Amino acid sequence: MGLTHPFLDPVSTTKPGPKNLITDVPGVTVGQVTYQDGTHNTGVTVIKPTPDNVFQNKVPAAAHVINGFGKSTGLVQVQELGTLETPIVLTNTFAVGTAETALVKALMADNPDIGVTTGTVNPVIMECNDGDINAIRDIFVTEADVTQALATTSTSFEEGTVGAGVGMSCYDLKGGIGSASRVINIDGKPFTMGALVLSNYGFLRDLNIYNEPVGAKLAALQDAEKAKENGSIITIIATDIPFNSRQLTRISKRASVGITRTGAFIGNGSGEIVLAFSTANRISHYPKTELTTQAAISDDKFDRYFRMTVSVVEEAILSVLTHATTVTDRKGQPRQSLRDAIDHYLTVTPDAALERLKQQLGI
Amino acid sequence: MGLTHPFLDPVSTTKPGPKNLITDVPGVTVGQVTYQDGTHNTGVTVIKPTPDNVFQNKVPAAAHVINGFGKSTGLVQVQELGTLETPIVLTNTFAVGTAETALVKALMADNPDIGVTTGTVNPVIMECNDGDINAIRDIFVTEADVTQALATTSTSFEEGTVGAGVGMSCYDLKGGIGSASRVINIDGKPFTMGALVLSNYGFLRDLNIYNEPVGAKLAALQDAEKAKENGSIITIIATDIPFNSRQLTRISKRASVGITRTGAFIGNGSGEIVLAFSTANRISHYPKTELTTQAAISDDKFDRYFRMTVSVVEEAILSVLTHATTVTDRKGQPRQSLRDAIDHYLTVTPDAALERLKQQLGI
Amino acid sequence: MGLTHPFLDPVSTTKPGPKNLITDVPGVTVGQVTYQDGTHNTGVTVIKPTPDNVFQNKVPAAAHVINGFGKSTGLVQVQELGTLETPIVLTNTFAVGTAETALVKALMADNPDIGVTTGTVNPVIMECNDGDINAIRDIFVTEADVTQALATTSTSFEEGTVGAGVGMSCYDLKGGIGSASRVINIDGKPFTMGALVLSNYGFLRDLNIYNEPVGAKLAALQDAEKAKENGSIITIIATDIPFNSRQLTRISKRASVGITRTGAFIGNGSGEIVLAFSTANRISHYPKTELTTQAAISDDKFDRYFRMTVSVVEEAILSVLTHATTVTDRKGQPRQSLRDAIDHYLTVTPDAALERLKQQLGI
Amino acid sequence: MGLTHPFLDPVSTTKPGPKNLITDVPGVTVGQVTYQDGTHNTGVTVIKPTPDNVFQNKVPAAAHVINGFGKSTGLVQVQELGTLETPIVLTNTFAVGTAETALVKALMADNPDIGVTTGTVNPVIMECNDGDINAIRDIFVTEADVTQALATTSTSFEEGTVGAGVGMSCYDLKGGIGSASRVINIDGKPFTMGALVLSNYGFLRDLNIYNEPVGAKLAALQDAEKAKENGSIITIIATDIPFNSRQLTRISKRASVGITRTGAFIGNGSGEIVLAFSTANRISHYPKTELTTQAAISDDKFDRYFRMTVSVVEEAILSVLTHATTVTDRKGQPRQSLRDAIDHYLTVTPDAALERLKQQLGI
Repeated sequence: MGLTHPFLDPVSTTKPGPKNLITDVPGVTVGQVTYQDGTHNTGVTVIKPTPDNVFQNKVPAAAHVINGFGKSTGLVQVQELGTLETPIVLTNTFAVGTAETALVKALMADNPDIGVTTGTVNPVIMECNDGDINAIRDIFVTEADVTQALATTSTSFEEGTVGAGVGMSCYDLKGGIGSASRVINIDGKPFTMGALVLSNYGFLRDLNIYNEPVGAKLAALQDAEKAKENGSIITIIATDIPFNSRQLTRISKRASVGITRTGAFIGNGSGEIVLAFSTANRISHYPKTELTTQAAISDDKFDRYFRMTVSVVEEAILSVLTHATTVTDRKGQPRQSLRDAIDHYLTVTPDAALERLKQQLGI
Repeated sequence: MGLTHPFLDPVSTTKPGPKNLITDVPGVTVGQVTYQDGTHNTGVTVIKPTPDNVFQNKVPAAAHVINGFGKSTGLVQVQELGTLETPIVLTNTFAVGTAETALVKALMADNPDIGVTTGTVNPVIMECNDGDINAIRDIFVTEADVTQALATTSTSFEEGTVGAGVGMSCYDLKGGIGSASRVINIDGKPFTMGALVLSNYGFLRDLNIYNEPVGAKLAALQDAEKAKENGSIITIIATDIPFNSRQLTRISKRASVGITRTGAFIGNGSGEIVLAFSTANRISHYPKTELTTQAAISDDKFDRYFRMTVSVVEEAILSVLTHATTVTDRKGQPRQSLRDAIDHYLTVTPDAALERLKQQLGI
Repeated sequence: MGLTHPFLDPVSTTKPGPKNLITDVPGVTVGQVTYQDGTHNTGVTVIKPTPDNVFQNKVPAAAHVINGFGKSTGLVQVQELGTLETPIVLTNTFAVGTAETALVKALMADNPDIGVTTGTVNPVIMECNDGDINAIRDIFVTEADVTQALATTSTSFEEGTVGAGVGMSCYDLKGGIGSASRVINIDGKPFTMGALVLSNYGFLRDLNIYNEPVGAKLAALQDAEKAKENGSIITIIATDIPFNSRQLTRISKRASVGITRTGAFIGNGSGEIVLAFSTANRISHYPKTELTTQAAISDDKFDRYFRMTVSVVEEAILSVLTHATTVTDRKGQPRQSLRDAIDHYLTVTPDAALERLKQQLGI
Repeated sequence: MGLTHPFLDPVSTTKPGPKNLITDVPGVTVGQVTYQDGTHNTGVTVIKPTPDNVFQNKVPAAAHVINGFGKSTGLVQVQELGTLETPIVLTNTFAVGTAETALVKALMADNPDIGVTTGTVNPVIMECNDGDINAIRDIFVTEADVTQALATTSTSFEEGTVGAGVGMSCYDLKGGIGSASRVINIDGKPFTMGALVLSNYGFLRDLNIYNEPVGAKLAALQDAEKAKENGSIITIIATDIPFNSRQLTRISKRASVGITRTGAFIGNGSGEIVLAFSTANRISHYPKTELTTQAAISDDKFDRYFRMTVSVVEEAILSVLTHATTVTDRKGQPRQSLRDAIDHYLTVTPDAALERLKQQLGI
């Protein structure tokens, strides 16, 4: 369940869907496998764009690189053809190879034509580095983990310290998986946009929650700031609005505004990559005719879709922070949840704004 | 009239349209103003994408930069919004400012809402440097020239030493304006693609005409090769195939293959820029609804559209060479037409291949 | 003089240079011509990157398009060659053509080789649409205005309702020209980064000044919000840090963070374009040898340069708002300065936060 | 050993280095593992850019996507940071995941800091689809194969049906691995550029060898043309010329000219990707100071480097065709070598041009 917050949304007047999760977009499901044994704190999160065979009927998609210090794979073809033809797998940086092999095998299992009577398939794997909390050099994630995550996707899923997010940090607090959704009315019909983030970036002092400089306060209790940004954030945007791939690129670019609003400056070492897809039109692998018609939408009123994008991405990040729970990092130090960090601060310093924020965030 | 040649087309089996000009694409017209007074050898060529008001109903478009040593304007917005909303003006490098002002005024005259109740307009001006043949520092082209070219567009137009092409060179021979077209059958319906080039690039020794290394032969009579590439080539591609802007970008990229086949290596100083548009879908400036449907085409069979693109661009360049006529350059030297250069060569050296080529090219 | 503010800078610990203007970067000068006659409220602002002949000795540069709904010219070549070879001219959208012609003439005057013994020149003109306040259809700016602005550049210049900024709006308040600078120590040596913005974007309700949602308050007094974003923001970044063009592209991308921090969501119609240059290395038009050495800087510590970029751009925008003065728009309505808008609000509603903000901003 | 040919090079006057291989660039080595058991016809080819630890001292690099129908990984970070920090692994499409894991492990073995005291590493894996000849669904390549290829790199290596090239096709003939080199004198000093291609694209009818339309002739004996392009070509360019990453991008773009000259039109399904690196400057992972100096080169004389790039890439492709040997494909049909195809043709049709070509190519 996404964030349930009483904030007046400052950037968009759109409201969340029923779950306030990316799975409010019809057909989208999420599956996760979680390892948390003290040493291996990592996992896999997969997003299935459609309930049916997405290789046979692809979805329009776009990828945007905000800062390319990252190792995601599959983006070149998404950018060229404007389609996504596999589920998206999120995991840690060194599990990308394993995940790619597993995803290829899963696609081959469902599509006996791949590699025989048709070409290959373009697996999309996206990643962040969880090395501060996870023994990343062990390459612990297996192909079976990916297979299991793919086999168990659902419209309900956990946020926070779960799946690919187990070992992630966000603003030096505990990060991980977060999601949110928004509903909008277009020409009298409702449409949904959802975001899911794998959040692993940021300096504590920068954290800003709807104009409350939480991070600047909490950072006063910090022993020392990390030397440099070595995190990342992956953003997945799903919608049933009939955006084409050019328009999805434009939508993707607004994810950076949502990220920035929480305090980011897009650090040198932060791999910030966005992938957006729309389920409104499907692109057949074996088209019966060349000429078709597609649902389309004008760019003219895009201001409100951009606002919605900013809003849903910002909230997905906050949902990471409110759901993630304190863990112990590789150095034996606690990587605190936002709640624990605020509570700790409040034991030292009374602060009405932070008390109020806790209530508003429901933590 | 485009090239009428007996070559078996080596890359595509498509045939030219009735005029073998870009104006074979329904609705596309071309207008030109020519100065050729010995000092001022320059002009204007405009391409109107539609007979009606293209600002009110824009056309999907894409721009691709092969090599960015160029001063074309308007590409940023074409790339962002995927639409063209004005005629395209071609002229010399230093006339871009004048042409931009003239084009803005022409659009304002037709659209009283521009700058008042709606925003501005994105004029597209593309250019090559004709300074070897034209006194380019005089900035001789006037706003009235652009207005006149816009007012006199037609489905018939001249090629060669005309319009923006008066002062251009191509493979150190006389260059200028060239055009060609191709017709293709899609799902039982005929569609057309046309190309128009403003051609001003290349070293003589590299010129290759359907596998005949004409340039290598002619270069033997050349006193000295120019020190470096300072030319350019602008390619306009028009079609009524319902490509979207992403697909038009892919089509644009194949222009470079057509250019390369004639011998180019894409020199450092060569501004090689492609603009492609499709008249199949129109994008309203004042959409009545946000949601619409658009004609679309699958990428699956794009091989044949790419082949057609290569073919039509290659032939447009050859059409420059067969139509352009010898002029005197700024140093008082002749900038020879292909015909004159071959004839001169043949007076010195008998060469059956060049004799045959002359006949095949109809020069 | 840039903003003199008492804020603890939340994103960077760097301090402004002596003037807190882009001209704190050694060699950079700015010149402006202003029209404000009630109907024609527009002008020209030029930034000279170096005191000497920048065509003969170019500066490394980069251009980044945040949102391409804009008509700036010259970016294609900057991106290809990674150099800037002219002053930068800022003006209104329909004056781009005039400014381009004037800038070409100015460069020809200083460089008799252009168009004769060497190639052409790549003029860089950047623009926003001032049509709400200026009779933009009149194309009032002349070539002489550009020439004068070029001839009168200085290290001191005005901000606010001046030069290209006369007719611009920012968050529906009076916008225009703003600037700021930062000094940083690298390996024991001081370096400077400066920003200058032409600011003409935003919805009032979104304005955020260092976490104070000023706009949300002021918007309560607004009759009606504009239908859609039709503004833009141009950002110029200058520095003497030896960034190469790839690094300047990375720096340019962080301008969007500074812009976003003041409340922007990057609207559909907003042309948001950044041009950055470094004066540390010069690129000769007539290099004596091909091989050279250049000053260089590692990407490894870029976090702090990114923070500095965000900070200087954010402050340049605030400096627009604190310097601009109320004008009357084309509909006869006041386009209020930030000060006047806050004062008006305070006559209706007591608000300690806005009182304090006024003092902090020195308005 | 690269091609030893008597052709007058039509595009560049540069001559090959001693081996006419990419390993003529000092420090560059290549290692290969080959499977050819009738069913599993595939392998691995690795290119080591330097003899020392390239993670600790990276090389400037660039990646260019000609057509993005491909699954190469690692390009995003190369494009952002302009550096290559691992060897490059070439293999078949479905072995990319395995190769990525193996390459990460190899880098970890050499760099105990990775994932512990420093961040992660960006492995570069590039691929083509060998499914016509190899049982690609079996994912036969193992991590040990990659490790072995990395451990056995040398300045001498085989071309043709070897390494990653075992199962590849080129113009419907047998494709695979090819390489070439060129030496050039700059300011009195010799420098080298080398290319290595993994070549798996093209339609037979299009093959053109130095203006001899070999493919058009051979295609007459072809039963049926394949339905569409499903191949690819990967091009690696190495040099000790001090190009920066922007310049390496420009160089990379000229690879497409070399490819096109052999007859390609850049098919829809062809993943055409170029990676170029320069060994002249090294970028320390742990820089002692931020400010440094780097060897640099002017863009002014780039025409000759572009010509050289075209030449070395074209010849690398021809070297594939002259070295590859006939194999049996998955359907039991012979995938003929160029020599066998010409010989077969000559048994049917006498053709002096093809006889001469055979001699010139030394096949």
